[in-house]
Amino acid sequence: MNDFDFYVPTAIRFGKGKIACLPSELARYGRNVLLVYGGGSIKRTGLYDRVMELLSDFKVTELSGIEPNPKLSSVEQGAKLCKTEHTDVILAVGGGSTIDASKHIAAAACYDGDPWDLVLDRSKVSKALPIITVLTICATGSEMNSGAVISNEKTLEKLEINTPLLYPRLSICDPTYLYTLPPKQTAAGAVDILSHVMEQYFQPNDEAYITDELSEAVMRTVVKYAPIAMSEPENYEARSNLMWASTLALNHLLTVGKGGAWSVHPIEHVVSAYYDITHGVGLAILTPAWMEYVLRDDTTARFARFARKVWDVDESDDRTAAKEGINKVRAFNRSLGMPSSLTEAGIENADIEKMAAEAIRTSGLSERSYVKLSAVDVEKIFARVF
Amino acid sequence: MNDFDFYVPTAIRFGKGKIACLPSELARYGRNVLLVYGGGSIKRTGLYDRVMELLSDFKVTELSGIEPNPKLSSVEQGAKLCKTEHTDVILAVGGGSTIDASKHIAAAACYDGDPWDLVLDRSKVSKALPIITVLTICATGSEMNSGAVISNEKTLEKLEINTPLLYPRLSICDPTYLYTLPPKQTAAGAVDILSHVMEQYFQPNDEAYITDELSEAVMRTVVKYAPIAMSEPENYEARSNLMWASTLALNHLLTVGKGGAWSVHPIEHVVSAYYDITHGVGLAILTPAWMEYVLRDDTTARFARFARKVWDVDESDDRTAAKEGINKVRAFNRSLGMPSSLTEAGIENADIEKMAAEAIRTSGLSERSYVKLSAVDVEKIFARVF
Repeated sequence: MNDFDFYVPTAIRFGKGKIACLPSELARYGRNVLLVYGGGSIKRTGLYDRVMELLSDFKVTELSGIEPNPKLSSVEQGAKLCKTEHTDVILAVGGGSTIDASKHIAAAACYDGDPWDLVLDRSKVSKALPIITVLTICATGSEMNSGAVISNEKTLEKLEINTPLLYPRLSICDPTYLYTLPPKQTAAGAVDILSHVMEQYFQPNDEAYITDELSEAVMRTVVKYAPIAMSEPENYEARSNLMWASTLALNHLLTVGKGGAWSVHPIEHVVSAYYDITHGVGLAILTPAWMEYVLRDDTTARFARFARKVWDVDESDDRTAAKEGINKVRAFNRSLGMPSSLTEAGIENADIEKMAAEAIRTSGLSERSYVKLSAVDVEKIFARVF
Repeated sequence: MNDFDFYVPTAIRFGKGKIACLPSELARYGRNVLLVYGGGSIKRTGLYDRVMELLSDFKVTELSGIEPNPKLSSVEQGAKLCKTEHTDVILAVGGGSTIDASKHIAAAACYDGDPWDLVLDRSKVSKALPIITVLTICATGSEMNSGAVISNEKTLEKLEINTPLLYPRLSICDPTYLYTLPPKQTAAGAVDILSHVMEQYFQPNDEAYITDELSEAVMRTVVKYAPIAMSEPENYEARSNLMWASTLALNHLLTVGKGGAWSVHPIEHVVSAYYDITHGVGLAILTPAWMEYVLRDDTTARFARFARKVWDVDESDDRTAAKEGINKVRAFNRSLGMPSSLTEAGIENADIEKMAAEAIRTSGLSERSYVKLSAVDVEKIFARVF
């Protein structure tokens, strides 16, 4: 088991109606609130009205229109607002994109230079505004971690900013907010959750038995409840288990004692930076392709374990079990309505060579991932999904 | 899934040599340290010298001799020292008893009345000194939670004080410190960890699937590694997995979405308050007796699941599987060298009636436990272990 430090100081309020605590929690930090949200779905569902009602005693500045794969330009706009409006606390109402943008804004609001500096050099983040989140999509786990992925539309880079200063102080997780999610978002969220766990599960260290066991527990939860949430959107048991699975998948718990770089996310990040496809869709397509590419003698045991423990594969031969597990992943994604190739997702004439080089440049793929990959390897993985 | 709030702000530094961070971490709070430890095993192992070397720039006041089932008198003594020595921070070096005593001292040091008041009425805890721990026994999980169990030797009560103010700020978990544990303590620790998980696992709510899955993962970890740690005391993989299992078993993660009162601990607490036996020994004896007593039609499915998922019982009939699971618990405890009855543990002529009444009075057994128990039920459970 690798050494680790663990410190996750975000408070979670989980359950129906937990949003009622907002006024008292926001008031800890001040009266000037920057309300950050996305494309307006919270207006359709009534959540916006509920929030504004709770915030009647606060001065609220709004930053709406945060897009999936949130953009640097939104961050720049938000940071400017925080400075001119003397914001005390940021309230992010939405999913991972809104929360990620809010984290970067929180840091940029306390920084005088170009916000992108903070992504390129984390040591420049010395302060950040406090953040409270109200989660409306479960996928990224951003509500209980200190990372944020931001796309720079000028440079076509999609990179992460991550420092302990960016932990939300409080996240309100009400599973009933997921009832109105479009099926596509439920599906993409489930794929994203599973992928987060798999990224941490497929890593060089094999001695963190407890972490592997916990990871399998979370993956089984997603495999069990994602189809239920798709067919019964208002099934509280399914939504609540998925929502908490999503948080645990990326709140540091499942990486403890492991270590190593992620494999599929860095490849997908390049695709969604270039083509702005839904992150979960990109992951659904790339994950089985990556698995098949890295399945070989020295990875077979791990893939066989994965197949048996997560996908209930009952097959005594390891290699056969491993392959069957990968098939199960692909079938699961398809059952959620995911496309099976990037072509099917609408991407054509991609510059595979350039994207592969970019994935290598911006990640630990070639040095610290489960199976170390070169740019040529990544090109071959891309070739499988076009 | 029940509603829940989750907030666990303790930082963990896990791994060999992590103690080196002590000076900088203590210095955040001041220079006056109360060093709390137990019976002197840390002097035999060299850990005391290492700590004192690291603390050469601090003013250190010592409170040694904290006993298993820590006593109110130790707390009184510690609180008095904190007041006279103007302690800034408490450093607990030891296991659950030392940490629990330190927590109560931390609160009592900031309170003018009788320290026992704080146990009887948690609302009286309005402030506490910061606590840093160095863990030398893995069992209680006290290093990452806000509870402490204290025995009042005058009233023969063993009760818990629990408030968020008592979370240690930092806990240093170095698995190599467990290498020198006597086998009896390794065994009692393993039983205690398992029991903590079972207390949370056997509860009224069945919809927290993810929490049940995580609980099973932690239990399998203990079942796998406890025997290895017994036979190979310096097996790092075993010690590290057990150490983290112990922390996760009682850091709130495994109670999320469940709720309800514990079943076996309240019964055991009375026994160890009256007879001062090792907590883990009491649990090892009482747990299978409790299980057999509450196994009935409406609990069979859960016990069968427990048997299959934790103990690998391969038996299709639920009732048979359930019984086999309980047998496995008993066999596991015996394999760790635990006695199988309180008589065997040296307790004779116990006043069963009085102890049962006390267990009911001081717990949620009769109202909120998995199977609600009356005093008569508890007497019958006692009757099985004498």
